[in-house]
Amino acid sequence: MSFNTFGHLFRVTTWGESHGPALGATVDGCPPGVALDAAMLQHWLDKRKPGQNRHTTQRREPDAVEILSGVYEGQTTGTPIQLMIRNVDQRSKDYGNILDTFRPGHADITYFQKYGLRDPRGGGRSSARETAARVAAGGVARAVLDALVPGLSITGYMVQMGPHEIDRARFDLAEIARNPFWVPDAQAAQDWAQVLDQIRKDGNSVGAVVEVVAAGAPAGLGAPVYAKLDTELAAAMMSINAVKGVEIGAGMGAAALTGVENADEIEMGADGPRYRSNKAGGILGGISTGQDIVVRFAVKPTSSIHTPRASVTRAGDATDVVTKGRHDPCVGIRAVPVGEAMMACVLLDHLLMQRAQTGQAGPVGRIGPAE
Amino acid sequence: MSFNTFGHLFRVTTWGESHGPALGATVDGCPPGVALDAAMLQHWLDKRKPGQNRHTTQRREPDAVEILSGVYEGQTTGTPIQLMIRNVDQRSKDYGNILDTFRPGHADITYFQKYGLRDPRGGGRSSARETAARVAAGGVARAVLDALVPGLSITGYMVQMGPHEIDRARFDLAEIARNPFWVPDAQAAQDWAQVLDQIRKDGNSVGAVVEVVAAGAPAGLGAPVYAKLDTELAAAMMSINAVKGVEIGAGMGAAALTGVENADEIEMGADGPRYRSNKAGGILGGISTGQDIVVRFAVKPTSSIHTPRASVTRAGDATDVVTKGRHDPCVGIRAVPVGEAMMACVLLDHLLMQRAQTGQAGPVGRIGPAE
Amino acid sequence: MSFNTFGHLFRVTTWGESHGPALGATVDGCPPGVALDAAMLQHWLDKRKPGQNRHTTQRREPDAVEILSGVYEGQTTGTPIQLMIRNVDQRSKDYGNILDTFRPGHADITYFQKYGLRDPRGGGRSSARETAARVAAGGVARAVLDALVPGLSITGYMVQMGPHEIDRARFDLAEIARNPFWVPDAQAAQDWAQVLDQIRKDGNSVGAVVEVVAAGAPAGLGAPVYAKLDTELAAAMMSINAVKGVEIGAGMGAAALTGVENADEIEMGADGPRYRSNKAGGILGGISTGQDIVVRFAVKPTSSIHTPRASVTRAGDATDVVTKGRHDPCVGIRAVPVGEAMMACVLLDHLLMQRAQTGQAGPVGRIGPAE
Amino acid sequence: MSFNTFGHLFRVTTWGESHGPALGATVDGCPPGVALDAAMLQHWLDKRKPGQNRHTTQRREPDAVEILSGVYEGQTTGTPIQLMIRNVDQRSKDYGNILDTFRPGHADITYFQKYGLRDPRGGGRSSARETAARVAAGGVARAVLDALVPGLSITGYMVQMGPHEIDRARFDLAEIARNPFWVPDAQAAQDWAQVLDQIRKDGNSVGAVVEVVAAGAPAGLGAPVYAKLDTELAAAMMSINAVKGVEIGAGMGAAALTGVENADEIEMGADGPRYRSNKAGGILGGISTGQDIVVRFAVKPTSSIHTPRASVTRAGDATDVVTKGRHDPCVGIRAVPVGEAMMACVLLDHLLMQRAQTGQAGPVGRIGPAE
Repeated sequence: MSFNTFGHLFRVTTWGESHGPALGATVDGCPPGVALDAAMLQHWLDKRKPGQNRHTTQRREPDAVEILSGVYEGQTTGTPIQLMIRNVDQRSKDYGNILDTFRPGHADITYFQKYGLRDPRGGGRSSARETAARVAAGGVARAVLDALVPGLSITGYMVQMGPHEIDRARFDLAEIARNPFWVPDAQAAQDWAQVLDQIRKDGNSVGAVVEVVAAGAPAGLGAPVYAKLDTELAAAMMSINAVKGVEIGAGMGAAALTGVENADEIEMGADGPRYRSNKAGGILGGISTGQDIVVRFAVKPTSSIHTPRASVTRAGDATDVVTKGRHDPCVGIRAVPVGEAMMACVLLDHLLMQRAQTGQAGPVGRIGPAE
Repeated sequence: MSFNTFGHLFRVTTWGESHGPALGATVDGCPPGVALDAAMLQHWLDKRKPGQNRHTTQRREPDAVEILSGVYEGQTTGTPIQLMIRNVDQRSKDYGNILDTFRPGHADITYFQKYGLRDPRGGGRSSARETAARVAAGGVARAVLDALVPGLSITGYMVQMGPHEIDRARFDLAEIARNPFWVPDAQAAQDWAQVLDQIRKDGNSVGAVVEVVAAGAPAGLGAPVYAKLDTELAAAMMSINAVKGVEIGAGMGAAALTGVENADEIEMGADGPRYRSNKAGGILGGISTGQDIVVRFAVKPTSSIHTPRASVTRAGDATDVVTKGRHDPCVGIRAVPVGEAMMACVLLDHLLMQRAQTGQAGPVGRIGPAE
Repeated sequence: MSFNTFGHLFRVTTWGESHGPALGATVDGCPPGVALDAAMLQHWLDKRKPGQNRHTTQRREPDAVEILSGVYEGQTTGTPIQLMIRNVDQRSKDYGNILDTFRPGHADITYFQKYGLRDPRGGGRSSARETAARVAAGGVARAVLDALVPGLSITGYMVQMGPHEIDRARFDLAEIARNPFWVPDAQAAQDWAQVLDQIRKDGNSVGAVVEVVAAGAPAGLGAPVYAKLDTELAAAMMSINAVKGVEIGAGMGAAALTGVENADEIEMGADGPRYRSNKAGGILGGISTGQDIVVRFAVKPTSSIHTPRASVTRAGDATDVVTKGRHDPCVGIRAVPVGEAMMACVLLDHLLMQRAQTGQAGPVGRIGPAE
Repeated sequence: MSFNTFGHLFRVTTWGESHGPALGATVDGCPPGVALDAAMLQHWLDKRKPGQNRHTTQRREPDAVEILSGVYEGQTTGTPIQLMIRNVDQRSKDYGNILDTFRPGHADITYFQKYGLRDPRGGGRSSARETAARVAAGGVARAVLDALVPGLSITGYMVQMGPHEIDRARFDLAEIARNPFWVPDAQAAQDWAQVLDQIRKDGNSVGAVVEVVAAGAPAGLGAPVYAKLDTELAAAMMSINAVKGVEIGAGMGAAALTGVENADEIEMGADGPRYRSNKAGGILGGISTGQDIVVRFAVKPTSSIHTPRASVTRAGDATDVVTKGRHDPCVGIRAVPVGEAMMACVLLDHLLMQRAQTGQAGPVGRIGPAE
């Protein structure tokens, strides 16, 4: 089957192919009475938009979003919100030569095997253009979260490009908006620009690690045991194109720790329990602790490269594939706003679930002296 | 909300607390006419059973499974299969002293915050005992897979304990069953035994990385875009207690690769396309390629340790917590059969989905010369 | 597929066959902190229990329910509640002679066609014994509703048996508990007893219409457009064995009305809008109005009768079928508590949904003078 | 919550308000490789289109459907199919005077209570215009059914308008397309035209009963116990605007029958078992028998009438409401193609489910002499 919906109560269904007439998202389950207009969503789409600098694909898409339903006089009505983005710069002839070959690292071959047909237009449904719809839907989630959880912030950034990691000692959130890599390290931004120019010149591409942090989320979110908050974040991030690994808090590195090192000790703060460290990434037993929620994901290098790679044709003949067309040398860059959008959707979904089961949009049990 | 079901068409709902009278799984959507009895499930449960050697908890649970419905005269009937495991060695007094304190690294605090109450009996629903139900359900999935995909094998093993990785040059599947660590490296098995004895003696614990490989799965499984095969595996593994990271194929390491290194080149084999490498972990665009499906997950060190850690009481007072009771010094060991069970359930679920949408339990599109 | 779960947020999965070792329900999504014990559920099960008078099957089942999980020290914990009922009086030899024939009006033939096998033990999964699990789950829903909506009452009763309707002029809720038919009309109770004695003597059976009314439910429940409150009630009631029709308010009779007759006029009452009639059955546009919610369903006559009916064997040979064994001459009687249970589950589910989306367990919009 | 999706494997999500810019349906889970274009869907939409004769609303909507995704070169691709219908003749000023009053029989009041706001544009989401999206989606289902079940036909028609029933002795399917009432009785068509003219002249409206029959559906469809085929049809039909009752086969009338009368006797036909009657409406135990599947539903009279009815304003003041604007005097007429569309979607969904669980798009168990 094709499962194009995510979320339990805040449900997002995306649709559309990279080179069809349009793509979009149907957002169902949105609370009513929340201020929303297209400009609020466009803000986030512009962040993801291609062609903004030399480090991303030169495809020119305005990615202008239209709200076709579910909003009346600037407010959500509680009915499904249809978000549509017209495809403009389709140039599908760029892809004409790949109709009968399979690009290594791409989904061409598996889509063909699964469905028995090719939609050669830029990857069809498997194209990362689908993530524009997620960003639009994430904008809706952010608008609702702003209303329900004042002070919640969701911030994504790159922490690694190829083998080059940021220096956490230089970490500065203010830098993120100042460079094309969304990297919180001014020096890394400079270095990476040179690295990526060379990669592109070589007809090659490179992977990345993106980190997304939610600060200010309440304790108590997460639905044990098969919709734990970390389970949902892992699924959300792994569903983004080209993602091959997901980590919460200490992540894969948790394997190398001892129990003494790993257990985040607890003390009382002014307004409740406070942790002395955050190996847990803000989640224990699948439920948020009230700390920063920290998720990281690895994005593989773009498979569309100008270097020939061995492959086969539909008829089974050997061939070399060179992917022409316009591509991102590091698709991880544009995954940053997508990761943020997924975080927003997951948090809102769990906030609604907690509200359903307990009547509270936050913790029920209170820790501290009796009042 | 509480979401205790996973799977789309092969749906498993687990229930039960670690120290209540019983726990189990309701398996819905199972194909009819498949040979099944309790002994077939017991085989897998025995693999996970505690107390089998000095490296796992000394809690003695027979973990005997009863089939209460859905099977008639040794065959599945297509109706829900209820699997029940009685808790026997409950000894909940072991946990008595923790009623009003929160164990660092444990879900005590978040469950209390979420639901407003404590079930102090060994972690209640958040205990890893819940995974016994998964292993039983996974046994049902394996029985069906055996009938539908002859030659499919699912094998889990440890590849890292604490900072100690296996040597891939010594990799030998036959070793897995010969040591208490399910490790495919005889030398590592010896070394780790010493390491773990010391860890236990120190009142400490250690993390691990488990790898699960499915060989012989058909191409074409996976439901784009929000139930991609890798998305589902990431969710399945992250839902296991104490898991903090999940990787497919090259995993987090994919970030450091270039596109040239990462793209698995394709050539024709005797019976279809064949890949020269498997950075993809057997999944492209969320759909299986027919290669080995490779997933790894990191298990954090057991939080129940004998070393005091700072925490707070329900009333907000500072306290030191020492977790007595019987615990696994490396809970990763017992996660191996759980990871296998989750892989089995996910693969079967997607096989049924492919069958629903296309009528085939495998690929529809064929690559090769016209016949 | 087999879909044995109903509900969106308050989710009930039933399992078990009529003549297997046990049957039950897994209740997921229950709010935490609600007082609950087995006796509270047993109260409702006893109402449905067979063999209580000469008008229902003489099968003797204590239908004693055990709570295996999700309740700790008399309170729900928010985790799945497993309810198990052991089958005791199985006597499956009663059914031995039907192994190779198909009973007209029964699901024997369609289950065989669907799944390719027979579970001859009393109808297996298609037996109305499955509804015992619903009644137990409904008991959980009632306990939660009592806590969330003080004053809500749910009452089911028979309004027709065979061609014999009650006289609404004699309608008296107090009569319901005084007769074996749950009929709110003392005279009908007397008349029907004679009718049913004759029916049973004739080796025949008879249909019935059951009405279930929820009084005191808040306005605002119902999820347009595919989980409207009436849609959900229709599905809930139609899923009960032997039900062939469902009506809301004026029901099928609405077809014969004009718009002038049908529109329930509105006036202001002391605490909000009040309707002068209730053709709508308490639901407009799929959302509750705050009036009584009124649903009726028709139960066909029991298909297990002592009168021979023409049928075929598995081999295709003609045969006459006489169903021996112990059966209800009017299965509609025992459908009354089942209809109540379904109403309770649906209302709670929608209360939680309204709470999720709007934060209110009732109406958001207020009608009346500004305060 | 708002639940705007129906179906398990063939999933339809509708969106859009009656007077917003557009409405539509996202169809997910469609099999790949099925021939489909907009003209095939337009055929069904034209059947439902308003303004075709004097008996339906004079609103002029071309209801032209665009396929925005999921179809490539005239074939479904297996990815989500987005169907969009632009609203053209919106004239929402017609509704201006109702902003602060609630129309009796309408969802104005309950939507306001549920969500806390009014979308006065022609009923917003609660308008029957939403059913255009269902008809489009039903067109997709029909295209797939044509490919999978040759010979299957789905036919809807009116059997009652107000108190006037058709004469079954005059039943003639060929008449359906010859009159504006989709009624299979030429005499009734003439009589009803006069009745309806008078009703309209009186500023009144009238209810109806619609029957939908699927002939040629295979045995074995239906998912016990909470997605029985009759359960799903009941939900599907009850979700249509203004429907107040649903019947399968003998329907509410089954209550008045005895078991001897009700049990459809079975004999062998040329190609399998054959029934001597069809009280069951083609469904036993929630599973199709292979007979005609017969469902009926009652549509209440249009609530928008020109006769004043007592109501209240948002401020709680008494008022009389006269609904101006263009309305159907018998909205049941236009429900006919909607009922057909719902039947098509439900049948396809269950065909895919049967295929998932058993690998067959029809019965597994065979009745007849061994071959």
